[in-house]
Amino acid sequence: MTAQRILLIVLDGIGDRPHPALGGATPLSAARTPVLDRLAREGVTGIMDTIAPGIRPGSDTSHLALLGYPPEGCYTGRGPLEAEGNGVRMRPGMVGFRANYATLDPDGLVVDRRAGRIHGTEPLSKAIEEGVDLSSFGVTFRFVSGVGHRAALALDGEGLGDGVGSNDPKHEGVPPTPFEPATDRAEDAKTAAVLNELVRQARPILFDHPLNRERLAQGLPPANEVLLRGAGRMGDFQPFAERYGLTGAVVAAATLITGIGKVVGLETVRVEGATGSIDSNLEGKVRAVTDALETHGFVLLNIKGADESGHDGRAEQKRDFIERIDGALASFLDLPGTVIAVCADHSTPCSVMDHSADPVPVLIRGEGVRPDRVDRFDEFRCAEGGLHRIRGRDLLPTLLDLIGKAHKYGA
Amino acid sequence: MTAQRILLIVLDGIGDRPHPALGGATPLSAARTPVLDRLAREGVTGIMDTIAPGIRPGSDTSHLALLGYPPEGCYTGRGPLEAEGNGVRMRPGMVGFRANYATLDPDGLVVDRRAGRIHGTEPLSKAIEEGVDLSSFGVTFRFVSGVGHRAALALDGEGLGDGVGSNDPKHEGVPPTPFEPATDRAEDAKTAAVLNELVRQARPILFDHPLNRERLAQGLPPANEVLLRGAGRMGDFQPFAERYGLTGAVVAAATLITGIGKVVGLETVRVEGATGSIDSNLEGKVRAVTDALETHGFVLLNIKGADESGHDGRAEQKRDFIERIDGALASFLDLPGTVIAVCADHSTPCSVMDHSADPVPVLIRGEGVRPDRVDRFDEFRCAEGGLHRIRGRDLLPTLLDLIGKAHKYGA
Repeated sequence: MTAQRILLIVLDGIGDRPHPALGGATPLSAARTPVLDRLAREGVTGIMDTIAPGIRPGSDTSHLALLGYPPEGCYTGRGPLEAEGNGVRMRPGMVGFRANYATLDPDGLVVDRRAGRIHGTEPLSKAIEEGVDLSSFGVTFRFVSGVGHRAALALDGEGLGDGVGSNDPKHEGVPPTPFEPATDRAEDAKTAAVLNELVRQARPILFDHPLNRERLAQGLPPANEVLLRGAGRMGDFQPFAERYGLTGAVVAAATLITGIGKVVGLETVRVEGATGSIDSNLEGKVRAVTDALETHGFVLLNIKGADESGHDGRAEQKRDFIERIDGALASFLDLPGTVIAVCADHSTPCSVMDHSADPVPVLIRGEGVRPDRVDRFDEFRCAEGGLHRIRGRDLLPTLLDLIGKAHKYGA
Repeated sequence: MTAQRILLIVLDGIGDRPHPALGGATPLSAARTPVLDRLAREGVTGIMDTIAPGIRPGSDTSHLALLGYPPEGCYTGRGPLEAEGNGVRMRPGMVGFRANYATLDPDGLVVDRRAGRIHGTEPLSKAIEEGVDLSSFGVTFRFVSGVGHRAALALDGEGLGDGVGSNDPKHEGVPPTPFEPATDRAEDAKTAAVLNELVRQARPILFDHPLNRERLAQGLPPANEVLLRGAGRMGDFQPFAERYGLTGAVVAAATLITGIGKVVGLETVRVEGATGSIDSNLEGKVRAVTDALETHGFVLLNIKGADESGHDGRAEQKRDFIERIDGALASFLDLPGTVIAVCADHSTPCSVMDHSADPVPVLIRGEGVRPDRVDRFDEFRCAEGGLHRIRGRDLLPTLLDLIGKAHKYGA
């Protein structure tokens, strides 16, 4: 019997390099992972370059590739995906940005690039949307709050480019950088002018806002500046259901991942207590996935905590969190009629504390798969597996083929 | 700790096929190579198509790919690289050629395509540069001597194409072939006319030259003709340091390889006694590499002798020279902070006596590498390695990632 559903589990940043604190093992190879090992034993394994050998993937570009939308054709920056993740309906051609609320001191110097890691900025974003007027440029916009100090901006109008720098000075104690076009093109100059005007108008609105007055009274840094980066033009994404003939859902804590899901037409399933950190409600996410598979042919589950440990350089913490993930996945062992793929979007080695280009381990388990002899899910053993070395863009077509949703090329 | 430097060792033409004289082994698998084997054991191995499966690479195209300049975008022929290697500063758009000095008999027939393997042709090249006038075409040129009978020509001017044949008849006892354009394009017709005129004017200059009169007096074949081939248009190469953020050097005997190095901006390190043959001063090259690594983030070492044995079809000689190479590499085992990659630019099977498309073995050893179980550097065992099968263009990005010089694609 052919399986009918696909569960794609992305263990964010789980790939690593040999680490001295683990006696030369990686966190994944050092972890006790009976569930992942059983999936590997029953399935076929390999290694995967989510973009290409030697390319360090972002989480955005790699997830697009894993969903069958190779980023070379549809990605110019992270902004549009963040805006979608925060609830803006981006149309092709709109230009999106990631935003931070930050704190300026009375001299106009950035003293906190995250405004004391403020939460609950929705009233501030609403005030910007209502108070800033860009109609002299023929531009409308949305400014929406995200998690914590994060937000997103979306510009809509004629002749707007996405070749523009950031006003984030990257360091504290200096003023924000004016926006500059990255090219000689008139569109990029227009976008830079629009952004400079937006920031200029937003400042007095934020300065006078009751929420900020209250923060000052409490001795907290006010959120009186917005820093924008990650400019990108929204691409034209053929909806997932139309492209692949099955409906999809995404279970993820990170706005970026749910944003990518929205962009390609995956339903976002919200889970109480899903944080994107190692304290995340994994059991709740797993239950949500099981439920979503009742009504969707494709579910993407992203579990983020291991990536965070990699960015922090904490190899033992990463190993231990991987063991927690493994336990939470146990109930997937008996999912009927489902092809399960497990991989990462990129490696985040604890020795690098950032993404690297090292290929990630991948396994596919389900009806129709040709098992190999690998019985352990880690970077070393999967390199000996029957999938050999594939690209991120190869994975979804392979899974679709296993559930009978691939199209014949030729006759 | 992440490594900071890359040493790329290209064992020119070392790949081979099973050979009856070696009981079905390849020269590399028959050789005793404790140093290469230790690097393989401590590192990760694989096989590599320097261009693509089934494509027989030239040394030029493969080295360009290995340096991260895939030749499809920047290579139209070997001439410009030879000209650079011989000291001509080629600007984008100039057209370059490989040249041989040859001998014509009184009837105008080619009787020696290498003019008795003449050495010291600099006075002849100087006479051509001073005596030949192409100004009626609006063209200036350089004609420079290389090693032995070899030389290079570079044309500079408007409307010159690189689609032109050779005047080398390939056989002796026949006259040189007139230059013919390879297409209907006016640029190619112009280049053919320029070359015919250059050869016409060069003949009497060479005929009367004291150096040739002296050779005739000594009973040696005079160098009274130039044969040109390998037409190519100089590409626009982004300098290596700008492209990758680290300075590079090249240690190689072959003009072609140092020429490629110059084209992409690698510093040429000269080594006394480096011949490109099996009598080369390997120890001197290894010392030069170690010194260059003190001041450069990237060093390319090319060792050519095994390729020569392959072209000559001498399997045992190739095996023995590989053992000499192995011994010379021993001092690299303890290089601090360096990622070492060892590979070939192509296979040169003794049974083929030319380059072949067989993939070459490759190993990468250094901090951060995920070792596989392969403990032998040869064509058979490396095919079981953790890198699987990569392309030449994938190698440098992979090495850059290991020293923290890769850029993130996305966020």
